[in-house]
Amino acid sequence: LDASLNENRTEIPLLGLRNYWYPAIATWRIRKKPRAISVLGEKIVLFRDNGKIFALADRCSHRGAPLSMGKCLYPGSGTVSCPYHGWTFEGGTGKLVAKLMEGSETPPPARAAVKPYPVQEHAGFVWVFVGDMEPVPFETDLPECITDRSQWFSISNWRTYNCNWRLLIDNLSHEQHAPFLHRDSPELLFQPIFKHATRNSTEELEDGRGIGHQATGGVHVTHYPGLGDFPPPQEAWYRVLKPSGRGKDMSEGSEATSKYGIKFRHMNMLPSLALIGRPNGNFFTCRFVTPVGENTTILFNLNLFRRRGSLVALMNSLKWVFWSSWAHDWLFSDQDKFVIERIRPGAEMLSRTDIGLTAWRWFTSTNARRPEAAAAAADPQREKAEASNVQ
Amino acid sequence: LDASLNENRTEIPLLGLRNYWYPAIATWRIRKKPRAISVLGEKIVLFRDNGKIFALADRCSHRGAPLSMGKCLYPGSGTVSCPYHGWTFEGGTGKLVAKLMEGSETPPPARAAVKPYPVQEHAGFVWVFVGDMEPVPFETDLPECITDRSQWFSISNWRTYNCNWRLLIDNLSHEQHAPFLHRDSPELLFQPIFKHATRNSTEELEDGRGIGHQATGGVHVTHYPGLGDFPPPQEAWYRVLKPSGRGKDMSEGSEATSKYGIKFRHMNMLPSLALIGRPNGNFFTCRFVTPVGENTTILFNLNLFRRRGSLVALMNSLKWVFWSSWAHDWLFSDQDKFVIERIRPGAEMLSRTDIGLTAWRWFTSTNARRPEAAAAAADPQREKAEASNVQ
Amino acid sequence: LDASLNENRTEIPLLGLRNYWYPAIATWRIRKKPRAISVLGEKIVLFRDNGKIFALADRCSHRGAPLSMGKCLYPGSGTVSCPYHGWTFEGGTGKLVAKLMEGSETPPPARAAVKPYPVQEHAGFVWVFVGDMEPVPFETDLPECITDRSQWFSISNWRTYNCNWRLLIDNLSHEQHAPFLHRDSPELLFQPIFKHATRNSTEELEDGRGIGHQATGGVHVTHYPGLGDFPPPQEAWYRVLKPSGRGKDMSEGSEATSKYGIKFRHMNMLPSLALIGRPNGNFFTCRFVTPVGENTTILFNLNLFRRRGSLVALMNSLKWVFWSSWAHDWLFSDQDKFVIERIRPGAEMLSRTDIGLTAWRWFTSTNARRPEAAAAAADPQREKAEASNVQ
Repeated sequence: LDASLNENRTEIPLLGLRNYWYPAIATWRIRKKPRAISVLGEKIVLFRDNGKIFALADRCSHRGAPLSMGKCLYPGSGTVSCPYHGWTFEGGTGKLVAKLMEGSETPPPARAAVKPYPVQEHAGFVWVFVGDMEPVPFETDLPECITDRSQWFSISNWRTYNCNWRLLIDNLSHEQHAPFLHRDSPELLFQPIFKHATRNSTEELEDGRGIGHQATGGVHVTHYPGLGDFPPPQEAWYRVLKPSGRGKDMSEGSEATSKYGIKFRHMNMLPSLALIGRPNGNFFTCRFVTPVGENTTILFNLNLFRRRGSLVALMNSLKWVFWSSWAHDWLFSDQDKFVIERIRPGAEMLSRTDIGLTAWRWFTSTNARRPEAAAAAADPQREKAEASNVQ
Repeated sequence: LDASLNENRTEIPLLGLRNYWYPAIATWRIRKKPRAISVLGEKIVLFRDNGKIFALADRCSHRGAPLSMGKCLYPGSGTVSCPYHGWTFEGGTGKLVAKLMEGSETPPPARAAVKPYPVQEHAGFVWVFVGDMEPVPFETDLPECITDRSQWFSISNWRTYNCNWRLLIDNLSHEQHAPFLHRDSPELLFQPIFKHATRNSTEELEDGRGIGHQATGGVHVTHYPGLGDFPPPQEAWYRVLKPSGRGKDMSEGSEATSKYGIKFRHMNMLPSLALIGRPNGNFFTCRFVTPVGENTTILFNLNLFRRRGSLVALMNSLKWVFWSSWAHDWLFSDQDKFVIERIRPGAEMLSRTDIGLTAWRWFTSTNARRPEAAAAAADPQREKAEASNVQ
Repeated sequence: LDASLNENRTEIPLLGLRNYWYPAIATWRIRKKPRAISVLGEKIVLFRDNGKIFALADRCSHRGAPLSMGKCLYPGSGTVSCPYHGWTFEGGTGKLVAKLMEGSETPPPARAAVKPYPVQEHAGFVWVFVGDMEPVPFETDLPECITDRSQWFSISNWRTYNCNWRLLIDNLSHEQHAPFLHRDSPELLFQPIFKHATRNSTEELEDGRGIGHQATGGVHVTHYPGLGDFPPPQEAWYRVLKPSGRGKDMSEGSEATSKYGIKFRHMNMLPSLALIGRPNGNFFTCRFVTPVGENTTILFNLNLFRRRGSLVALMNSLKWVFWSSWAHDWLFSDQDKFVIERIRPGAEMLSRTDIGLTAWRWFTSTNARRPEAAAAAADPQREKAEASNVQ
């Protein structure tokens, strides 16, 4: 089993899954001045004109200067000009519209165009489609609670991780490190204690865009012969404040299920998204993993609150500002960050705690979007792989 | 055309053209204490003894210690001693003359010599010949206005660029980026406005050492449909101070031509030199590009003034100190530096603005000095290349 | 001769000789909190429990997190737990004893063990055996004056070198750089002057663990025709304070020989140790070279004093604190450090000053410990090499 899982992993590309929409940067950081970013290892220039944001490959086709060092010389035209000789490109299409040092008699050649990137502004971020095919509609890649702004509002932040994106998405795939790694996190002082030694089951989401996870059972204390109890007694003091038990699981008649029909409180969706919710169904933390380079990844953290009147919204916001932003998005997440940034390459030995991750790697390897030609060519192999890897 | 030009470029070596004299460092920086430099990727130690400067390969043949960490233990002998065991090498020849830890009975072996580099002091710089053949006479590689110190004096400085030398010499090859990249440079506030959309012609110099460039025509304002004027109106304010037009071209009866017979105000000479003058023929800025390593290049900037009496010399010097050193050698040149240090590798799409650069790459590829054996062997290929690439 | 010596060198591994004991870190730096070190390029975690130190490969077999980021959760059990999911390993054996997130019903699989490293505390340092065989008894790899704590006591320190270990052990192999490189070292102001132009002889130690060096003859001043005297007159001032001559060599009836039977005052022992003593036989400086990575090496410096009563011990200690630690371990050693950290790769041209080093490389290449299978396989080649390389 382990061997086949590790093999699956090698099919997951180092620089991220292509042909998806990714959040790239906070909207407010893009002004008139062009700005350089990287997504999936591709260097992109973003600029804003007439309120609209444009994204182009950040290398002038003429002599290779970065367009991000240039200027939007003609406001309103949606163009950016290279700093070196003024080659001017149209934001939406990447078409070269003028060589400013050569006069306007000759029309610039079509082959001088640079690659344009489909781009969207949503929920406070600029989203970019990086791939080799026509972009899919923007909403296709987002969970409903992000697209439906009438039902949900978000407060967001982001963090740069110095590791490959695969280590970060693994970490967000309902793997059972939390009861161990986060056992002393201040955020948990006022929450029920994590149970450990749970069992996981995983199911494909109805819309086929990802998988949902459920944990069952679990205990609060285990005795390990020759060692002692886990959690160890000397770490038990911080449990004093906590009630035991973590409430019902979503699938077992929680408010999320009964009131809103939400089946899972932990989901993973393609390309690299984790949705983790509260049993009451009114809050999701939605974490987008955007690969930047081989060893750089940005985690875009969208805290999604169900709109339940302005007073509740105010309370939610205040709680986030004065508590969650510090206790969860910073302290709690840093416990993960410090470990996964230091993981050493080499063989893995997957175990029962990794069943969520295993399912996710499997789902990704077999379901990641591919341009149709590639998908067709790969089909025979995929069938063969499915035949020999019955989970 | 583009394809062949790019091919030409690949013949231009990454670490610089060998078998030429290059300025390496300011003369005043070489004292008794040996000093390490790099030229064309070769590590060299320079030291001064009895007023003379010597240059040797900076690696002791014994155990590999840098001679530049050693000392000139025997002043007057023109030798340098390795710091580790005192192997002592003669500056002029590289011959090992003593192993100071072994006594003087046995003559040191001839094969222990290190490579000596021909070296010259001139115009405030130490010049080194790096190559694989007998050095050519020093003057062979310099333009007359540098060698003839009775007619010209120089004020010099230098700047280190974090890029390959080819990007820097390209930038100095009469390519028409100046009216765009430098349009807002303070230096130009008191000079005529650059014309853009000029046409270039290029001619081999009579002595065969380089090429001269001429720009003809050009306009001050162009309208680009769908965009607007270039220069854009919002950048026109700084033109208020400037008279329009930039004076006659040298070849068209300027003072430089009529009084001094200078045909071009912009020349490129082998190995990697740009001579750019004023129409009056009394000033040249002469920029030597010395490759240091793959991504390090030094630009030696010689400001050459025609000797016209001590009062004029004083005025020239004062103007340089209080204005040009800041406005040109620093601010103006930095506009280039910031761009070329950030140029991204990949295919180019050369255009009409690059005709000077194109001619220069062609001239370099076909005329760069080679040891005779290599030259003979390469002849058939060269003929073939000439036949298939008629400009 | 040179060629065969250089060939020998290539047989000496870049990351150090395996299957030996090496000092790794000062004992007092290892407390309860696990600590990461590197020896011979291998990443190791050290931790202390119940007073005992343990060493394991610093990568959890589960998902690759560094065990050095974990904790000793169960004091007294001699285990360390991975920070990510709590996999808990036994220090002495590397055996996985618990997966703290999975309950205790299933026994952890044997194949999940991590590599354990044999470890010892001695003379203020933690020693680690790095190799591919059963560890040899600890004393096997140490000279008697280190193991016999009843006769000797030590004061120690260490220094990190930014170079490969081979350059450092070469430097400690009785090569005759000292009269040159260290001629102006303050430590020598109060010592006899080094003779230079000595001749060396080298002999295998009786126990087969290394070689001993003897220098014979030598002079205080040599005249080099065309240069002058060495040492050069301008550097003679610091000789004023010194008596000439350095006393008898150990083998020629010094106190060390007559009183203690010590035959050599400079020895090299496997794997990478230099023992340098005083003629009176009461002091050795013992320098262990521990390879850390390709370009990082630690020199562990043990100053060994013969126990001759507490007053003498006090005097020895005071002298070390107020003089030798500064004059020798710092200033004198830095003269070497600055040179060997800057040695440039390439061919060597070994000479008479390198006979000690030559003998040491030869001894190392032919006598370094190897697991028996490897040794058997290599025998035919070794015989052949011995036949063709008579020294």
